[in-house]
Amino acid sequence: MTRKVAVIGMGHVGSTVAHYIVAEGFADDLVLIDTNAAKVNADALDFKDAMANLTHHTNIYVNDYQQLQDTDVIVSALGNIKLQDNPDADRFAELPFTRQQVPAVAQKIKESGFHGKIVVITNPVDVITSIYQSVTGLPKGHVIGTGTLLDSARMKRAVADRLHVDPRSVAGYNLGEHGNSQFTAWSTVRVLDQPIAELAKQKGLDLDELDKEAKMGGWTVFKGKKYTSYGVATAAVRLVNTILSDARTEMPVSNYRKEYDCYLSYPAVVGRDGIVEQAQLDLTDEELKKLQTSADFIKEKYQESLAANQQA
Amino acid sequence: MTRKVAVIGMGHVGSTVAHYIVAEGFADDLVLIDTNAAKVNADALDFKDAMANLTHHTNIYVNDYQQLQDTDVIVSALGNIKLQDNPDADRFAELPFTRQQVPAVAQKIKESGFHGKIVVITNPVDVITSIYQSVTGLPKGHVIGTGTLLDSARMKRAVADRLHVDPRSVAGYNLGEHGNSQFTAWSTVRVLDQPIAELAKQKGLDLDELDKEAKMGGWTVFKGKKYTSYGVATAAVRLVNTILSDARTEMPVSNYRKEYDCYLSYPAVVGRDGIVEQAQLDLTDEELKKLQTSADFIKEKYQESLAANQQA
Amino acid sequence: MTRKVAVIGMGHVGSTVAHYIVAEGFADDLVLIDTNAAKVNADALDFKDAMANLTHHTNIYVNDYQQLQDTDVIVSALGNIKLQDNPDADRFAELPFTRQQVPAVAQKIKESGFHGKIVVITNPVDVITSIYQSVTGLPKGHVIGTGTLLDSARMKRAVADRLHVDPRSVAGYNLGEHGNSQFTAWSTVRVLDQPIAELAKQKGLDLDELDKEAKMGGWTVFKGKKYTSYGVATAAVRLVNTILSDARTEMPVSNYRKEYDCYLSYPAVVGRDGIVEQAQLDLTDEELKKLQTSADFIKEKYQESLAANQQA
Amino acid sequence: MTRKVAVIGMGHVGSTVAHYIVAEGFADDLVLIDTNAAKVNADALDFKDAMANLTHHTNIYVNDYQQLQDTDVIVSALGNIKLQDNPDADRFAELPFTRQQVPAVAQKIKESGFHGKIVVITNPVDVITSIYQSVTGLPKGHVIGTGTLLDSARMKRAVADRLHVDPRSVAGYNLGEHGNSQFTAWSTVRVLDQPIAELAKQKGLDLDELDKEAKMGGWTVFKGKKYTSYGVATAAVRLVNTILSDARTEMPVSNYRKEYDCYLSYPAVVGRDGIVEQAQLDLTDEELKKLQTSADFIKEKYQESLAANQQA
Repeated sequence: MTRKVAVIGMGHVGSTVAHYIVAEGFADDLVLIDTNAAKVNADALDFKDAMANLTHHTNIYVNDYQQLQDTDVIVSALGNIKLQDNPDADRFAELPFTRQQVPAVAQKIKESGFHGKIVVITNPVDVITSIYQSVTGLPKGHVIGTGTLLDSARMKRAVADRLHVDPRSVAGYNLGEHGNSQFTAWSTVRVLDQPIAELAKQKGLDLDELDKEAKMGGWTVFKGKKYTSYGVATAAVRLVNTILSDARTEMPVSNYRKEYDCYLSYPAVVGRDGIVEQAQLDLTDEELKKLQTSADFIKEKYQESLAANQQA
Repeated sequence: MTRKVAVIGMGHVGSTVAHYIVAEGFADDLVLIDTNAAKVNADALDFKDAMANLTHHTNIYVNDYQQLQDTDVIVSALGNIKLQDNPDADRFAELPFTRQQVPAVAQKIKESGFHGKIVVITNPVDVITSIYQSVTGLPKGHVIGTGTLLDSARMKRAVADRLHVDPRSVAGYNLGEHGNSQFTAWSTVRVLDQPIAELAKQKGLDLDELDKEAKMGGWTVFKGKKYTSYGVATAAVRLVNTILSDARTEMPVSNYRKEYDCYLSYPAVVGRDGIVEQAQLDLTDEELKKLQTSADFIKEKYQESLAANQQA
Repeated sequence: MTRKVAVIGMGHVGSTVAHYIVAEGFADDLVLIDTNAAKVNADALDFKDAMANLTHHTNIYVNDYQQLQDTDVIVSALGNIKLQDNPDADRFAELPFTRQQVPAVAQKIKESGFHGKIVVITNPVDVITSIYQSVTGLPKGHVIGTGTLLDSARMKRAVADRLHVDPRSVAGYNLGEHGNSQFTAWSTVRVLDQPIAELAKQKGLDLDELDKEAKMGGWTVFKGKKYTSYGVATAAVRLVNTILSDARTEMPVSNYRKEYDCYLSYPAVVGRDGIVEQAQLDLTDEELKKLQTSADFIKEKYQESLAANQQA
Repeated sequence: MTRKVAVIGMGHVGSTVAHYIVAEGFADDLVLIDTNAAKVNADALDFKDAMANLTHHTNIYVNDYQQLQDTDVIVSALGNIKLQDNPDADRFAELPFTRQQVPAVAQKIKESGFHGKIVVITNPVDVITSIYQSVTGLPKGHVIGTGTLLDSARMKRAVADRLHVDPRSVAGYNLGEHGNSQFTAWSTVRVLDQPIAELAKQKGLDLDELDKEAKMGGWTVFKGKKYTSYGVATAAVRLVNTILSDARTEMPVSNYRKEYDCYLSYPAVVGRDGIVEQAQLDLTDEELKKLQTSADFIKEKYQESLAANQQA
């Protein structure tokens, strides 16, 4: 009965996730959690003040971890609002903060009796997703990072802009770390039923330039408003809805891949049971090398954060 | 062809209005305008980064006043972001800023050849709505302030919370200035098919307390997050949709009432032609007196702002 | 987890209910049941053929009563498709058919372990709702008929058309039997913040004419296409969504009223627990008399159907 | 101002198109046209009876060709309801009826001053689209048939069912005539980032069987309920929305291809200006041959229908 979603962390991203859910009526029950009680209560009241003019009803709970017991999907959007001077250029700038906060939050989630799925936005997302999984002890496929679902959307936007087509008509993926070591796997990108390499030749596109445009998109947004919100929040909510409706959609999200022994972004089929199948791309040698580099970087950072947390 | 909406002022409220429109696909073309070019471009790019994961497509234009020529509805959400330490407790704190900015913006709207409807959120909304109308020369019924559509939603939320019913099942209005002189016209409020006065007796409700709860709602939100956004943005978008679809819905919005010779909030029927009919409430003498006081205050402030602008 | 809805009876009404749910993505899991296996399988496949072009995903199950075990809301839309020559003029024409079918269906629902809410459209709806409740043994407030939620919408449409306002801006109710003994309780009807009686005087409206227009609306639709579908299906889906989201909305639906000792339409607050509160209208003596007549008629028909079923 | 859509032909398909539009609020103004005045008026009233329980408002006009003058998109859904014993197995069974009706309707559209886009569902869709274009004299890219947008969705459904993925995660097209000479261009089909041929080998799929399943899907639906509606109506509404929002989405629709000198289904980019770009697939020789055969068949039938109409 009912779609029950929780958002932990009500900064720019978390509150945008919550707004999208409330505005569209995607959830029946929405749990909002933040250490800043004044802020989360303000958002909750603001949503309630919108209710009479909205078309759907949503029940809102504030800072009540017990509500997680029967929550279907938790969205982790917590971050360090003070570190906003750097998030997108180097998402690891947040790690010293989040690697400490997340285990405590994950522990509370575990203690609530939660047995649903976790969608992680918190950066550095691949490392943090791993921490959530290990602390909660949930199955690996039940903890998923938004990862390059956002970066792939940015790549699609950049390609679509250049070719004057709907970004939804661009197929393909950004892979690896949701961070500086990620890359567009151009061998997977297809537009107008042609590999982008073909089209690039025909239309004189510079793929390196497009790559930079895609990668730097978040940075441009960040420079302009000191945070990014709509792109990543939309990716997260789409992921939540895919889980709730058991859509079994293929999407590039941060999921645990055995051959790399870490969470990294690689397309997988997402349904009510979380990651229900993993795709197997036919990447070029160069792409495989980049992916390995990205994986190595993620693992190194994960080990560092484990060590740092043990010392603390 | 197409629903074309513009948002002028991309602070917390304007960007929430834009997000709601983009997320639901309410408009086909969306024009975003702000003097902070970096911010408005960042928001536009952030929306485009969301597009591949959204279900509807929206074309986004940035800082192009010429696009207003065939825009259907403009939402004025500009405000003084630096004055955020006081907006809801005294919305007139924004007046020295907005009374200067708005005429310039209104002039540009006029010069664009715009001939649609304007929905005003900018505070103090009743005075600002009047300024927009007089500068653009648009028919009085084509310029509408969100006014107490928000305050009425807050009152409904407060009453609904107490009585455990849907705020949409509470009928009634807050009237007058969208500011400190407003009031809940309790004689118009009905819940569970009874006048609230009856119900208050039965259930031991204190209407004065409820009144305060409704009025101070915005202030509570403001204290918690230094701005309010979802409630007012939702009210504005509902008003926009009512105009676009010619729904002819009755809603309490700031509209020009001849007998008070000013814009103030009073229920009216809203459709594609703006204010298409004005309601006539059967208010108590006390309520009528309060409404007159509120009208007098609005008119005084409007005259002051005219005088100040002429001196400037 | 998930919103799970079942539709039993996939004639014109049931399939319209299912289409509305699938098109908007209101449910995650949708169970379709009909004795005509070819028809229900055709509809299910047709919905699946729509999926790639729809924005939301819905899982569809066909003719599987076991799926009801964890279904949240069942919509009973079964009817006698052969009796289509008379349904709206006399909804009791369906009784000989439905009073036999419904107990068997209700028994299967009970045996499935279903413990959710039932929304009944099947006519004569007040009698059939009662039969569902008694056979399943569910709490009285968990079995609800759409009743005059449709007739009230028709009344609002008729009044709104005449006064050129949004039907959503007309308040008020049709009460009693969803059938020929129902009536518009004009004392509850308010438009433009005035009792309709006042407005009728001012604008020269003939309430009897409006009453007929409202009551005969269904008949006009029926004459034109041999069935009615959109109005009643929309009412049913709104009721389902109100339950799922625990909106606690007041709506005129068929619910068991102790003082009349039967199911009949009277406004009640609907939430996740079904009927969560019953309104108490301040009706005129004439209206009270009409309501009693309507209640007596429903009880008589219910007794007749019990007797007929026992004989059979 | 406003999204204005017209539906001509209110049989099963046309009324489902209209219902989807009204239920989701996709259009502000909706014009319904049918030679059966009782039926179309019944549907219009039924929609109006739904309005008070719907979340969006839609203005409905009935049988008024003058409303087409400023309509954005017309959906042609007219068909011969009496020929329902055969539509999907041989869509040309409808030709003797539709080739006579369509020129008269197209003439009335032209006389209305209509200058928008036409979306054609009426079968045989490729021939009928051509007739609409030639009679109205509209640019070829402004008249579009739903074509194999439906068949491709059926193919995706069949493939997705077998591989347990979201049909939206299956890429690829059915091409040619929306009729018996169409075919799945398997060389364009990709699932889980692999060409279906690869996957078929790995998972032991029989593509011929899948082809049949896709092609016969409509027939199965037809056998079960004597018509098909949801799949094709959804495809048509998606096409309408793509045009209205200028989404520039690539989709397989019936569009005029110079090299085949006829309307046939082949992917194209659809936007506010109709067909804004045509894709160029890299088909196999066998697929090219099938496409030529399909094109020849369409042209032959078009010539026959011209000749028949001239004789008449």
